[in-house]
Amino acid sequence: MIHNFGAGPCILPQEVFKQASQAVLEFNGTGLSILEISHRTPEFEAVVDETVRLVKELLNVPEGYSVLLLQGGASLQFSMVPMNLLNEGQPAVYTDTGVWASKAIKEAKLFGNVNVIASSKDKNYNFIPKDYQIPKDAAYFHCTSNNTIYGTEMHQLPKSPIPVVCDMSSDILSRVINVADYDLIYAGAQKNMGPAGVTLVIVKDEILGKTDRKIPSMLDYRIHIEGGSMYNTPPVFAIYVSMLNLRWLTSKGGVAEIEKENISKAEALYREIDRNPLFKGTCAVEDRSRMNICFVMEDPELEKSFLKFAEDRDIIGIKGHRSVGGFRASMYNALPITSVHMLIEAMQDFAEKNKF
Amino acid sequence: MIHNFGAGPCILPQEVFKQASQAVLEFNGTGLSILEISHRTPEFEAVVDETVRLVKELLNVPEGYSVLLLQGGASLQFSMVPMNLLNEGQPAVYTDTGVWASKAIKEAKLFGNVNVIASSKDKNYNFIPKDYQIPKDAAYFHCTSNNTIYGTEMHQLPKSPIPVVCDMSSDILSRVINVADYDLIYAGAQKNMGPAGVTLVIVKDEILGKTDRKIPSMLDYRIHIEGGSMYNTPPVFAIYVSMLNLRWLTSKGGVAEIEKENISKAEALYREIDRNPLFKGTCAVEDRSRMNICFVMEDPELEKSFLKFAEDRDIIGIKGHRSVGGFRASMYNALPITSVHMLIEAMQDFAEKNKF
Repeated sequence: MIHNFGAGPCILPQEVFKQASQAVLEFNGTGLSILEISHRTPEFEAVVDETVRLVKELLNVPEGYSVLLLQGGASLQFSMVPMNLLNEGQPAVYTDTGVWASKAIKEAKLFGNVNVIASSKDKNYNFIPKDYQIPKDAAYFHCTSNNTIYGTEMHQLPKSPIPVVCDMSSDILSRVINVADYDLIYAGAQKNMGPAGVTLVIVKDEILGKTDRKIPSMLDYRIHIEGGSMYNTPPVFAIYVSMLNLRWLTSKGGVAEIEKENISKAEALYREIDRNPLFKGTCAVEDRSRMNICFVMEDPELEKSFLKFAEDRDIIGIKGHRSVGGFRASMYNALPITSVHMLIEAMQDFAEKNKF
Repeated sequence: MIHNFGAGPCILPQEVFKQASQAVLEFNGTGLSILEISHRTPEFEAVVDETVRLVKELLNVPEGYSVLLLQGGASLQFSMVPMNLLNEGQPAVYTDTGVWASKAIKEAKLFGNVNVIASSKDKNYNFIPKDYQIPKDAAYFHCTSNNTIYGTEMHQLPKSPIPVVCDMSSDILSRVINVADYDLIYAGAQKNMGPAGVTLVIVKDEILGKTDRKIPSMLDYRIHIEGGSMYNTPPVFAIYVSMLNLRWLTSKGGVAEIEKENISKAEALYREIDRNPLFKGTCAVEDRSRMNICFVMEDPELEKSFLKFAEDRDIIGIKGHRSVGGFRASMYNALPITSVHMLIEAMQDFAEKNKF
């Protein structure tokens, strides 16, 4: 068994792989592969409906919100958000908490005035800024709930007098959220929702249609709402696998249950990082992410050797992003706690071997 | 065996389904599912490289062109094309040969002056207009090479003094083309290239970078060229299946060989349509598509009954689009000629049964 700590696309449940593999041969008694059926068949329309329904149930999405399954990843949302919500010359407020937040800021600048009210850039994004006030006169407030590269996560959402837009790509469905606190949530699927190739958007209908800009159809949330995420041919297979994964999450007891597991997994690894004299965490303790756990070695000379040591035990995907270095263990919903224990054991055995 | 004449997403080779199904369980000796590997691994980078190389080989793409694997389908290209190629106030020339062409026209109008120089709209798009001159002073000429809904196909490309942009979604890789005659070709993959969820763009590099407009990164061809189609997380599985399908096409002898088969398949069915007194074609004979063959019955009352008759023989996906009615047999590369024979036999048996 391989212990896949990759940052995304990432591990999904083994039973999802089995079911998806089967559907590529034959889908749901149709005699056809999921790859060759028309998206306009009742069988596939049922897949889209169930996927949307499961998202709504798992996240307890209130009335007045639409759930969309789009393409282009969070990166396309960086542009779609301001294109749909921001008038030319109008201000929007962003926090800069990492590479992805900076990209969102860069794209928004093409559409309006972007005001970065808080940033942790000068500390290499190793904490979540909290000491700021969101002004009343901006179109929206944008934040990134989890910063994959730096291993930080927002554990509290600030009070906002204006619509809140959140990039939740790397922690959606990993913890209970109150959707009503947000006006637009978006997430590339390829962490806890499904495979690469589909993007989730949850949007409060009433915030749309308030800009003067003419929006290309494929970039207009209202068009996708009207088309039930089938304005054009959707990414059929990626949606199907997402549905399987959401079914799995539901069968595990839903988001509240998986959150407990995620807390246990994260606590266990952080405990070892803090205890083991060879290792140390890289970011502010109170902002530590449960999804992406970043750590380095006290002696950077040993890092290559530990990476090899772990790989020999089938622990993969833990090399840190070059901007932080060291290690990043991504521990999404589907990563079993046994994999976390294997990593902890490797850290302990490596310390033993290196005589600490 | 089911005879899948669906218009898309459509039939792909059975061996592609088998290989894809296997890769969902374990990809290329990695011990991981194709759905959980990082797109930044050498193993997946090799998939992107091979997919691009196979497209270049199969279509004999000349130097100076880039091959991109994007998201959003042809529908997003309807906006990306003018966004990248058309300055505000500048004219672009379009032909209106169907619903998809009209949508391309509608989206382009947001970016510049669109001049529709030829249209077959008043004949319900049942022919390809040919009697027009492309002006020298427009940014580009846009055409749709095959019109899925109406069953028409451009068998000749007009001479153009300006860059030629072509939506080839439904006939790319089905026939030999001279890529040098075009400046930008785009195609949703879900006909002859692969499954839904990836979009092919072939663009002549030198036509880019000539507008003043600030283009969002995800919509800028240059950004995707620079990123080797990995500016952000690509649709991993859809690209992988496309690669398998392109390998299959290569093993069949390439585009010239499949074109011969496609001609045989189309000729056989058109022969029956023209011969059988119950049926008739819907569009101009010289513009008949090899990919989507549209026909109706002399007595429309019998159509429901023939549809059922065919379905009882596992012939599916032949119901015509509501704007043409009757039947549409889509006969993409992977549809075996035995399926075409089955359909012809059903038409003959139905005629016999109805005593003609």
